[in-house]
Formats: sequence, C-alpha cells, structure tokens
Amino acid sequence: MTTIDTDRATRGRREFAEVMTFSAPEDATPAAANLVDYVFAEIWSRPALSRRDRRFITLPCVAAADAEGPLVDHVYAALNSGDVTISEMRETVLHFAVYGGWPKASRFNMVVDQQWERIHHERGQTTPEPEPLLPLVTASDPELRVSGGEQSFKDINCMPVAPTRDNPYSGAGILNFVFGEMWLRPGLGMKERRLITVACVAIQDAPMPIMSHVYAALKSRDVSFDEMDEIALHFAAYYGWPKASNLNQVIGEQKQRCLDEWRTELETTS
Amino acid sequence: MTTIDTDRATRGRREFAEVMTFSAPEDATPAAANLVDYVFAEIWSRPALSRRDRRFITLPCVAAADAEGPLVDHVYAALNSGDVTISEMRETVLHFAVYGGWPKASRFNMVVDQQWERIHHERGQTTPEPEPLLPLVTASDPELRVSGGEQSFKDINCMPVAPTRDNPYSGAGILNFVFGEMWLRPGLGMKERRLITVACVAIQDAPMPIMSHVYAALKSRDVSFDEMDEIALHFAAYYGWPKASNLNQVIGEQKQRCLDEWRTELETTS
Amino acid sequence: MTTIDTDRATRGRREFAEVMTFSAPEDATPAAANLVDYVFAEIWSRPALSRRDRRFITLPCVAAADAEGPLVDHVYAALNSGDVTISEMRETVLHFAVYGGWPKASRFNMVVDQQWERIHHERGQTTPEPEPLLPLVTASDPELRVSGGEQSFKDINCMPVAPTRDNPYSGAGILNFVFGEMWLRPGLGMKERRLITVACVAIQDAPMPIMSHVYAALKSRDVSFDEMDEIALHFAAYYGWPKASNLNQVIGEQKQRCLDEWRTELETTS
Repeated sequence: MTTIDTDRATRGRREFAEVMTFSAPEDATPAAANLVDYVFAEIWSRPALSRRDRRFITLPCVAAADAEGPLVDHVYAALNSGDVTISEMRETVLHFAVYGGWPKASRFNMVVDQQWERIHHERGQTTPEPEPLLPLVTASDPELRVSGGEQSFKDINCMPVAPTRDNPYSGAGILNFVFGEMWLRPGLGMKERRLITVACVAIQDAPMPIMSHVYAALKSRDVSFDEMDEIALHFAAYYGWPKASNLNQVIGEQKQRCLDEWRTELETTS
Repeated sequence: MTTIDTDRATRGRREFAEVMTFSAPEDATPAAANLVDYVFAEIWSRPALSRRDRRFITLPCVAAADAEGPLVDHVYAALNSGDVTISEMRETVLHFAVYGGWPKASRFNMVVDQQWERIHHERGQTTPEPEPLLPLVTASDPELRVSGGEQSFKDINCMPVAPTRDNPYSGAGILNFVFGEMWLRPGLGMKERRLITVACVAIQDAPMPIMSHVYAALKSRDVSFDEMDEIALHFAAYYGWPKASNLNQVIGEQKQRCLDEWRTELETTS
Repeated sequence: MTTIDTDRATRGRREFAEVMTFSAPEDATPAAANLVDYVFAEIWSRPALSRRDRRFITLPCVAAADAEGPLVDHVYAALNSGDVTISEMRETVLHFAVYGGWPKASRFNMVVDQQWERIHHERGQTTPEPEPLLPLVTASDPELRVSGGEQSFKDINCMPVAPTRDNPYSGAGILNFVFGEMWLRPGLGMKERRLITVACVAIQDAPMPIMSHVYAALKSRDVSFDEMDEIALHFAAYYGWPKASNLNQVIGEQKQRCLDEWRTELETTS
C-alpha cells in the first residue's frame, strides 16, 4: 500500500517538474499534496492529450481563476519549456480576452510580459522586441470585414448561417471583430484556438456557446472525440467539477450529433 | 418590531413592483423574502443612485451570474419600464461582451431579443426592425483606427499614455477594437458605459482594471463620489459582499487619489 | 425608526466582532455600513443555521470570489474562533479545489498557511507540524479505487447508478478520485462537505450539479429543509442574489421531489 502511494507521489513530483520546469513544493497539506499526487501524477501524465495541448486548456483556466500564483507559474512553465512560443502566448491572451473578458486578460497580459522578461533575465539574454501590429491581415473596409466575418463565422462554427449584422453584439462585435479579425489572426493554430475557446465557454457556462463550440471543434475534426473527452477531465481539475460535469454532458450530446450527421452525409453521397 | 418589519415588506413589495414591472412572488423562504425586504426595500429605494443608473449595474451582474431567471426578469423590467431603450440595451450587451466575455454575452443578447419580442407581443404591437450596423462611425483604415484608439484610451482612462500597439492584446484588441471602435459607438452614454464597466471589473476582480476604471469614472466626473459609494452597495446585493468589499476598498483609495490630484491641479493653476 | 437603526448597527457590530474575532471597521460608506447592519445584524445572527455551518458556506464563496481581503479575514476568523480546526480547514481547501478548481484553491491554501502561522504568532505559540498525508485510507489498487468510487458515488448522491468508468471525466476523475478518494477522506464531516459542495455548485451554476447536490444533501437528511432554505439566504449575501435566486428555485423543486419520494416510500412499506 505505502509502496504504491509513494510511487504515485514520486510520479507526481517527476511529472510536476517536467510540466512546470521547477520542482514541486514540499507541502504536505491535503490540497498541495493532491495537486501533485492526483493532478500531476494522474491527469497531466495521461496520453490522450499532449502536454502542449493541455497548456491551452490550463492557461485560460488560471487566467480566469485570477489567482496570481498559478497564473504566473503556468505562464512561466509554458514559455520556459518551449511548449508555447511568445507569439502564440500573446495571441492566447487576445483570444482569452474575447472569450473570458478583458479585465482578466489585462492581468494575464501583464504576467506574460513579466515572465518573458524573467526567462530572458534567468538566461542572461536580452528580451527581443515584440512583433509589429500593422499591417493587419484582414480587410480594412467595414463592409468587407463584416462579410468576411460572416464567411469565417460559418466556416469556423460549421454552421450554414451567420447571425444578423444589424445588432451591436453580433454585428459590431461578432462579425466585425471576433470572426472578422480575431480568429483570422496568424500566430496561433486552429486547434489551439479551439482548446482555448472550449475552456472559456465551459468557464462561462452559457448553454448555446458551449454547445456550438464543442460541436464545431468536433465537426471540424480539429479536436478528436478522445481528445475532447480528455479535455473535460483536464478542465475539471483546473476549474472545478460542476462546470466540467456540464461540459462532459454537452460533449456526449455533440459527439452523437456529429456521428448522426456523418452517417447522413455518408448515406447521401453513397 | 413586527410593525416595522411589515412596513419593510410592504415597502419592498411596492418597490419590487415599480422596478420589475410585475408583482413580487409570494415566497416566504428566507432568500426570496430578503430579496424583497432588503434588496428592494432598502437598496433600490435609496436616493443616491437613480433607478435607471441601478439598471446598468444590475444588468451586467445578472448576465455574468448566468442564472437565466434573474437575467430574463431584469432585461424585461429595464425595457418594459422604459428606463432603458432597445438601442441602449443592445449597446449594453456589446459593452458587456468585451468586459464580461462573449459566451455570457451571447445568452444576454438572446434574452434581449426574446424579451423585446415578448413586450411587443404583450402590447399587441409589431417588433420594429433593428437599426442597421453600417456605416460605422469610426475610421476604417487600421492606422487611423489604432491611433484613434490611442487617443480615446487616454481620454477615457484619464491617463497620459496608451499601451503599446505591438502586442495582440493591447494593439489588435484594446486600441484597434475596444477603444478604437467599441467605446466610441453612439447609442449609449458615457456614464452608462462607466457603470457597466465598473460592475464588470468588480466581477472579474483583476486588480489593475478595477483600479483604473474606478479612477477614470471618478476623475472624469462622469460618476460622483456619492454615486460610486452607492454602486458598491448595489453591486454587493447583485454579486456578493466579498467582491463588493474589494471594490469598496478600491473606491476609497481612488477617491483619495482624485482629491490629491485635484488639490495639486488647483495649486498649480493658482 | 432611528432607534431601531441604531440598534441594528449595534447588533451588527457585536455580531461582526463575534464572528470575525476582530472589531468591525469604522467605515460609513454604504457597502461597508450595510455589511455590518445587514449581513452581520440580520443574516449571521439568524438561528436557522449555526455560526460554524455558515463558515462552510462563506469560505468557498470568499475563495471563489478571489478578493484577497475577505478571504484572509474569513480564514483567520474561522480558525481563530476555534469554530473550524486546522485539519477541517485543510480538507475544506481540498474539497473546494475539486468543486471550485485548483488555481483558486491554491491561493486559498496559501492563505490558510499564512493565517495559521499568524494566529500562532499572535499567541506566542509555535505552529504545529501538519499531519502526514500517508497512509491514505482508500485503496491503492485502481480497480478497487474505482469500484469503491462507484459505491460511494451512489451512496453520497443517493442515486441507484454510477456514471461510466470508461470516460476520462467520470472514470479517472469522478470515480477514481472525487468519490474514490476525496469524499472519503477523514477530517471533515459529511454535513460540512455538503455545505461546501452546495455553495460551490451554486457559484458554478451548471444546472445538473446544483440539482443533484441539493437533492442529495436533502435526501440524505444531512441538511434539513430549513437549513437548506437558510443556505440560500447566506449564499445570497456572499455570492449575490441572482445566483441565490437560482439556487433557491432548485431548492424548492428538490424539497418537493424528496417529499414525493418519501411519501411513495412510506406507501410502499406500509
């Protein structure tokens, strides 16, 4: 019994050191010990989702939780391990701002700057200049931006229709900026954007967005069924089981919906 | 003592009916009874903030809380009372999307459409067409939009400098969209945007944004000291005392900072 | 009327001092004054729930709200009053980690260590060593842990079936850890775990978990109907009326469901 428990603690400490790029604290309190023995030994080590992929779920969770210690640690670990580039990290902050709210993203952005500086300081290197914002890759003309947003809304959400443009939220917000510009920015892959988005909609817990973004991630095949199941577990550890339970239920429904649609598509084409 | 409690309940039911535009439920459970006897009898009725102003704090709180019943009720009440126009409500959704996150705003937007429809149905009227999105009032050219965003960032935040444009969060997000477009949209007054923003930064609880938005609301004189103190109380009822205590502490510090700055300005100019 | 308000303030300050173990701040702003005059004078003093029980609702609320001041104050007060032992507090952090997410729990855990240290420092005592984690009381063998988790899932949730083990969320998470280990840890009573869980599911606001945990707390008779009604009010003060209204509605429904089931059970056995 003790042997195996010790093994678990040892595995947890090894996994912690690999993921976090620093040693697990010597802390025997139940929460700290279980973070190592359960979250690191039994979740991070699971093969169904890569360590890099798990970072894009963890980062929005620690940014939303707004507890500075874990946010600092995970930003540092993601950059210091080389798993996430600085450009990807900065796009992650912007993507999170949209799906998790600008105030929390403001702190996230500040922490990214500080940790990027710290890593270069630790390595005796000079922090490189950030990449210039302009030119943007998307259209400047509002009509073109909005119609581009309508197309990318349909493509990204795997839906046949886009919402009305004659509404500030869906027109000036969703079509003009979120899908007309933000999702189309280079520097972050579609799978990574899916992971961040799924974590954020699960945090925010509004029924339609969870449903539509889980569906789109699966339907586009950017995220596999097994990966999506694994996301629910990783998310549970980082944002709590109640919201994860809801996410897991939605995942079950949307997997079925995809299977039904794929079956119909096969029958129609054959 | 019983007499007084009855008075309070009576006052609460009257205030509830005026604010909500429907009768308070007959519900003697402690939470429901205190909602009437305390939140309506003793908070909504306080003179330091108008009923209309209180709506712009309540709406982001119920949208963030994501409990559908209260969200539906408050959207209905704000529109049905005539306190908030449909254009203002729709801009409120967009402003909330930025400061509270798009997924929760998506539900808020859906509820606004449904309640607007319901009100017209109840009145036997046809729901009017929404206003067209285009043309936007802000510049199309990215360089002009970003430099306009820098100016409005400084004006609105009462700060001498704007953040770097060469960062996705602050460049493509804050300067290009949030201050380059969103805050400058017509249809919602500056005071109303301040109220929504203060509620959202208090919900999100990240230290710098609370500080800077409370400061700017006071420094611009868009919100008076007494109104700001009252916001903390109203917010406490709708998002809980822990976050409200934090907000209240920040308010105390930022009032002092404004007083110090105004004193210095007076001494400098005299 | 004035007499009574003075009474209320006096009662509030006395109750504040008893609950918090330090004097209420001299602060006349509306939010601070109402915290004393309403939350302490009129909620904490209500007999339907003990002061100790109220702590197990307050603690998850301040940990989730993530406003450091109230979190520090309530951790200090719970330990300093002797209402909550350090072992119970540390189990509370772990239980909260599961239901509120590890990042917020990490901050909570740090605050517990600091306040425990502070209390001993104030008393001129040496902080005792924490209790050792190992040996665990639950099985090491994964098969035994998962099947033990299935049994305790059914027992604790008052449900006839457990979820599938062949899903990362429900297998590796719920059965293997949450019900296979965490709920079974000694050091915290079942009623206390119910209070923490109900607060957390009300904060997280996902529909199924609120429903199932309110139901199980009532059905198990670990929490009485009157206590549960009172929880909704206490929660309203600490996490806002919108989420509390939602909780209160679920409570009403689940009380009815229990009554119906108990009536059926009686009829079947008689």
